[in-house]
Amino acid sequence: MAISEETFFLENRFEGTLQSQIQQMVAEGILSGRFRPGEKMPSSRKLAKHLGVSRLTVTLAYNELISDDYLTSHGRSGYFISQSAPPPPEFSAGHSRDSVDWSRAIGRRFSGARLVEKPVDWEAFPYPFVYGQADPTLFDQQNWRLCALQALGRKDFSSLTADYAERDDPKLVEFIARHTLPRRGILARPEEILITIGAQNALWLAAQILLTQRRTAAYENPCYPGLREILTQARCHLAPIPVDDDGLPPDLLPDETDVVFTTPSHQCPTSTTMSLKRRQTLLERARERDFLVVEDDYEFEMSFLTKASPALKSLDEDGRVIYVGSFSKSLFPGLRLGYLVGSAPFIQEARALRSSVLRHIPGHTQRTTAYFLSHGHYDALVRRIRNALHERRELMDQEIRKHGLSIAGRASFGGSSFWMSTGPGIDVDDLTTRLKARGVLIEPGTPFFETADEGREYFRLAYSSIPLAKIPKGIAILAEEMGR
Amino acid sequence: MAISEETFFLENRFEGTLQSQIQQMVAEGILSGRFRPGEKMPSSRKLAKHLGVSRLTVTLAYNELISDDYLTSHGRSGYFISQSAPPPPEFSAGHSRDSVDWSRAIGRRFSGARLVEKPVDWEAFPYPFVYGQADPTLFDQQNWRLCALQALGRKDFSSLTADYAERDDPKLVEFIARHTLPRRGILARPEEILITIGAQNALWLAAQILLTQRRTAAYENPCYPGLREILTQARCHLAPIPVDDDGLPPDLLPDETDVVFTTPSHQCPTSTTMSLKRRQTLLERARERDFLVVEDDYEFEMSFLTKASPALKSLDEDGRVIYVGSFSKSLFPGLRLGYLVGSAPFIQEARALRSSVLRHIPGHTQRTTAYFLSHGHYDALVRRIRNALHERRELMDQEIRKHGLSIAGRASFGGSSFWMSTGPGIDVDDLTTRLKARGVLIEPGTPFFETADEGREYFRLAYSSIPLAKIPKGIAILAEEMGR
Repeated sequence: MAISEETFFLENRFEGTLQSQIQQMVAEGILSGRFRPGEKMPSSRKLAKHLGVSRLTVTLAYNELISDDYLTSHGRSGYFISQSAPPPPEFSAGHSRDSVDWSRAIGRRFSGARLVEKPVDWEAFPYPFVYGQADPTLFDQQNWRLCALQALGRKDFSSLTADYAERDDPKLVEFIARHTLPRRGILARPEEILITIGAQNALWLAAQILLTQRRTAAYENPCYPGLREILTQARCHLAPIPVDDDGLPPDLLPDETDVVFTTPSHQCPTSTTMSLKRRQTLLERARERDFLVVEDDYEFEMSFLTKASPALKSLDEDGRVIYVGSFSKSLFPGLRLGYLVGSAPFIQEARALRSSVLRHIPGHTQRTTAYFLSHGHYDALVRRIRNALHERRELMDQEIRKHGLSIAGRASFGGSSFWMSTGPGIDVDDLTTRLKARGVLIEPGTPFFETADEGREYFRLAYSSIPLAKIPKGIAILAEEMGR
Repeated sequence: MAISEETFFLENRFEGTLQSQIQQMVAEGILSGRFRPGEKMPSSRKLAKHLGVSRLTVTLAYNELISDDYLTSHGRSGYFISQSAPPPPEFSAGHSRDSVDWSRAIGRRFSGARLVEKPVDWEAFPYPFVYGQADPTLFDQQNWRLCALQALGRKDFSSLTADYAERDDPKLVEFIARHTLPRRGILARPEEILITIGAQNALWLAAQILLTQRRTAAYENPCYPGLREILTQARCHLAPIPVDDDGLPPDLLPDETDVVFTTPSHQCPTSTTMSLKRRQTLLERARERDFLVVEDDYEFEMSFLTKASPALKSLDEDGRVIYVGSFSKSLFPGLRLGYLVGSAPFIQEARALRSSVLRHIPGHTQRTTAYFLSHGHYDALVRRIRNALHERRELMDQEIRKHGLSIAGRASFGGSSFWMSTGPGIDVDDLTTRLKARGVLIEPGTPFFETADEGREYFRLAYSSIPLAKIPKGIAILAEEMGR
């Protein structure tokens, strides 16, 4: 690519004649790594005009740079950075320009959370039992593309460019209200729905609005690590509640609970579905003790073993449940599209906070999804994914049993992963490392738990990204490394 | 559209025989507005299978619903919601389901900020002197579409679906580092750049990381109202600094300043460019008193009257300046794409916080923009917008002078708006209302100022969304209403 003349400035720090200053400027660009061998320099005419100097000055500077082998000239086609130009120094040299004491300047730290780690190149591994990534063999890329194109058409220009701070794309909100939520047994009006950047953003907004330093958040242990991070950053009191085979036990909630975060349809990561009785008890307690419930209803579409039960929110008769939905799992996580459903006064605050944090959700993403949903492609995709996951799960189940491995979470509804036990004497980090060396990726249980000591006997084994044909061999290696 | 059988659940609250329960369920769907006249019901076979009841039960229920005129039957093509079905009640009835005391349940309030208001239907007004909206006649929609298509191709599937929490799209980051920032005189490595959901998100992240309740943020008065909202929510000490004709006066910064938020290239909203001398003084003060500067460099591409001066960040020799850039103004605001540039320890915290708030920026948006930039369409677009704005500005200037209206902000570089004085005896809210009634939209100065009393003698008059041909008449109406 050609280097634009606009990237050149004659700054104070260059010295000597104009010609010499131009030479310094070009050499510095090469030495700093900004310009790379083979790239085309601006013509002497253009650069001279831009800098407000005579063309001859630039030509003389270029000729000097050629004799120093910074540049080469290819006759009439112009000047180029020489292939044998001096290479830039290692970049760490640039650090010397920083004299700020960042340990002091940073008022609040956010880094250092324990999160689920996945190698960036996970796709290069032959047996990736990783969770939550889109499978290109299942995704309906062709229809997604058509919907994206439709959303980019002249008629939809305003949906692309409009400011959606005050209201989200009405087409998307209407579809969610009239088709998606009713499948979960939920009735909601447009002012009770807010579009978010994925479920993560929905959980974050809810936590910011409902929690303060004096309030208590109860949540499941183990849980989605991103949620624990959100609650920790909210600086509220934390009440992790151990889950059992029926999900979150409402009787263990402390009296001072203000907000409960739960995954009733599909506990993350153990895959348990909360029983109807527990759901009713949870809502009764919420009424009695005046607390709120934030329900993360992720992956409900992936119920292929039993029919999806209605959401906890569908049983909510007094507006105590705030519902978090997401299209990331069934479409793809990079889409970053989720939603919050709750009473209008809550949604109003969530909208105002969202506006301050990021203004609004990109219009194109909203409109493309609205088309994909309303043209029926989404339902067809969900059916296809469900069938593929069902097939993979049966094979997984069979292979797991064949090798005598033990499943820790029941996942009676389906889903895309098993919650597994390592069994006695096996440390999960060690197991993970040994498996990785043999091309098998699993997810250790530790990041899901409250403390770094917990969860060393569990791991998650997902089948959303591994082809059917790879499953038997992958499980066989796993069994071998577990000594079965 | 056909109503899916999955939206039906036999819930506890329905009573009587199964047939009667099905009738109640359908009638409720119609009365609540979920199902609309003309929509197709699931076939009796499908609904029976879904509910686990006999087909005859569903057929009997449907027949009852037909005789009550909830449904109609079109022979073999199935059952439909009747065109004369009872209409749903006004939606406000739903409010009775909420028994939460939201004034208590909401721990932190975010609504109620004074922001620039724009009618949702601003495009319907003949003379919209509104700011910051994309002009469909200038935007290169065709090439944007092609780039979006390219980003949706099979080869790019992983860019669409990948998890970009740990690193942003490398193609976009590289373009910004090697082509965009050098035009502002800035050198930055990839780990010093973070992609954000527009400049708003970049400013918000910086404020969260650098400010605490004990720290002081200095900022311009007047300023971008979204920034004041961000700083207010950060709960730090606020030090608004009145700007003059040269921008922010560094000598007025209080000793306890920890972070300065400034718009040196183009003060918002007065349009002043900060002089080089002031910039140097500001950086000297920052070094002496150990404070940081957040530079919002919006709209720098729109310098068509004078050459854009390098960014303040380009003069920064010790890493004190954090730079905020955006593609929203030159592409379109609905894109929601901006970036932060700063020292690596700061960017690391910003990335961790972003990850907690929203995980990452949609991959498709990043990749489409990367293609649009690297194929050269962006530069061509900027040139086209610049030329159009230049032409409009000259006409605006001429008409403003002709009618004897007074410009309050100098805007010597160009840009897309004038900062105007109302002159004595004219209240800007009153003027705005009168103009709106005549089809002319202006933006009152008040939301830009620290207190609601200030700014009543100013308004912003933008020309980014008004066609050239409408300018003379629009200014004429404005002059008339101002009594000129």
